[in-house]
Amino acid sequence: MTSKTERPRRLGEFELIGRIFAPLATGVPGAFDLADDVALIAPPPGREIVLKTDSLIEGVHFRRDDPPSTVGRKALRRALSDLAAKGAEPSAYLLALALPQWIDVPWLEEFASGLASDQADFGITLVGGETDATSGPVTITVTAVGFVPEGTLVRRKGASPGDIVFVTGLIGDAGAGLAILSGFLASSPTSAREALISSFRTPIPHLAFGQALRGIASAAVDVSDGLIADLGHIADVSGVRIEVDAVRIPLSPHLQGLKGSGLDVRIDAATAGDDYEIAFTAPPESTPAIRKAELQTFTPVTAIGRVVPGEGAVLLDPSGREIALERRGYTHF
Amino acid sequence: MTSKTERPRRLGEFELIGRIFAPLATGVPGAFDLADDVALIAPPPGREIVLKTDSLIEGVHFRRDDPPSTVGRKALRRALSDLAAKGAEPSAYLLALALPQWIDVPWLEEFASGLASDQADFGITLVGGETDATSGPVTITVTAVGFVPEGTLVRRKGASPGDIVFVTGLIGDAGAGLAILSGFLASSPTSAREALISSFRTPIPHLAFGQALRGIASAAVDVSDGLIADLGHIADVSGVRIEVDAVRIPLSPHLQGLKGSGLDVRIDAATAGDDYEIAFTAPPESTPAIRKAELQTFTPVTAIGRVVPGEGAVLLDPSGREIALERRGYTHF
Repeated sequence: MTSKTERPRRLGEFELIGRIFAPLATGVPGAFDLADDVALIAPPPGREIVLKTDSLIEGVHFRRDDPPSTVGRKALRRALSDLAAKGAEPSAYLLALALPQWIDVPWLEEFASGLASDQADFGITLVGGETDATSGPVTITVTAVGFVPEGTLVRRKGASPGDIVFVTGLIGDAGAGLAILSGFLASSPTSAREALISSFRTPIPHLAFGQALRGIASAAVDVSDGLIADLGHIADVSGVRIEVDAVRIPLSPHLQGLKGSGLDVRIDAATAGDDYEIAFTAPPESTPAIRKAELQTFTPVTAIGRVVPGEGAVLLDPSGREIALERRGYTHF
Repeated sequence: MTSKTERPRRLGEFELIGRIFAPLATGVPGAFDLADDVALIAPPPGREIVLKTDSLIEGVHFRRDDPPSTVGRKALRRALSDLAAKGAEPSAYLLALALPQWIDVPWLEEFASGLASDQADFGITLVGGETDATSGPVTITVTAVGFVPEGTLVRRKGASPGDIVFVTGLIGDAGAGLAILSGFLASSPTSAREALISSFRTPIPHLAFGQALRGIASAAVDVSDGLIADLGHIADVSGVRIEVDAVRIPLSPHLQGLKGSGLDVRIDAATAGDDYEIAFTAPPESTPAIRKAELQTFTPVTAIGRVVPGEGAVLLDPSGREIALERRGYTHF
């Protein structure tokens, strides 16, 4: 094994990858130190298992020049964000890596260090993995495993006319961060630049808040493709219409300082995607419980619209007219 | 939605992909018709959850000219083979697809029809999925979900000196099938050609046999990288040496008719990979139980070697000398 240290710049065999990833799988018996074919999970009594598989692809969800530590964290957090929106507690994850030739050991080590940091922050462990060579872009598929008490999963289906529409955090920062990295948006103040790029690279899954929404939210979704697109999923499966007031979309001071807060900025923000906030609906009488959850979990929440009879999710201008959108969110094809 | 039918040759939006894959997710409440963020699994009482994530990459694990229906089935069966080797009953799977531009609707429909066929054969259901565009090769990541009665998982760790080494089915057919498809091996008889290619494209996971091995096998692994490489995993984690007699490796009549049964053919077969057989160890007194399982599940089993003190997995020639191998199996990097 010592001969491995003689070629630290090149990706070695499985053993080398095992050396990098096996430390992420310690302390959980069912991970078998990544030295078995499968992972074993013992479900706690009275809990259902929540599973989400999500791919992060170079050139689609991250840029080759992104720091490898944030690439690992973003891959993980995207899947955790789905668990958060459903009120699930994360427990473990599996990792499938497709790696092109340019990936070297330092890249992988930094990638793994980002995962290690997030494992500590979110109380989860790597339990299984697979690594393959690819002729294409880096492709990282995370399957996140969580638990919810039986019958408490917050679904997309369940929004009713009369419900209020809420969203956590800020919308549009990640899209602006990507625009800066892509050279489409100039940003003079360093602090704004860094905050927006950080929103793109390391979104924060609102796990504690999501769990607090159990029994309170009538429907919830994580905002990945775009606020309007994802609320559209709730509208479609709930059989309702969701109206969002453009002026109530929460924009960060950084974003407003850079782009202003005009309607065009709000449309961009509501359709950019990559926010990983929780958008949810709840009846008006739940508002005190939502405010309590907001304070207890330090998660800002904004009321942005309402559920009405009809179909689809729409963005309204200040006079209450529907804004014609060129697109409702990020489309993959 | 009807406008979608006007462009049947092109990959459309999510809705179109949903139309193709949603029918694979019917009949299981926790799949939510693929219209929620996550999948929900209710574990049966007294069972542990077995998870395996595995990627199938164009140009690595399958060829672009492989029929799309076999591509989907191979992706699924590779993960099911891992569950089989561990004695798990498969229940469900999640699918993450990274699709390049050349993939069209007919390809996806045929891909999905292969999955549908295997779902019926293996009693499993699609419960969650994700589709992204990629600039690289088709990358299909399956996360298989299964169950085992508590404490019955057949591990890689557990082989002891004195144990016999067994393998199911035939070794080397898939490697020969790939060689034929790649033009490295000429095959005149159509029946041989088709059988060998079929072994490469649609391996058969020995699920019933794997379940019968619970409490009988001391260790087991699925043969994906190569017989010797995968037995090496058992040897490493069990702290033993595994000796395989080259002459006892089960070769198919098709393979022997094409390449003979010389030592070089046996070395190729034992290191080619993609077999998806179960290699396992068991004490000699388990032999009657293994023969019974063999008959009950119609799964041929061959004793191919022994566990001894020492380390590593080795191939022995007819005189009992270790054969120096250039490689022990497929290496990804």
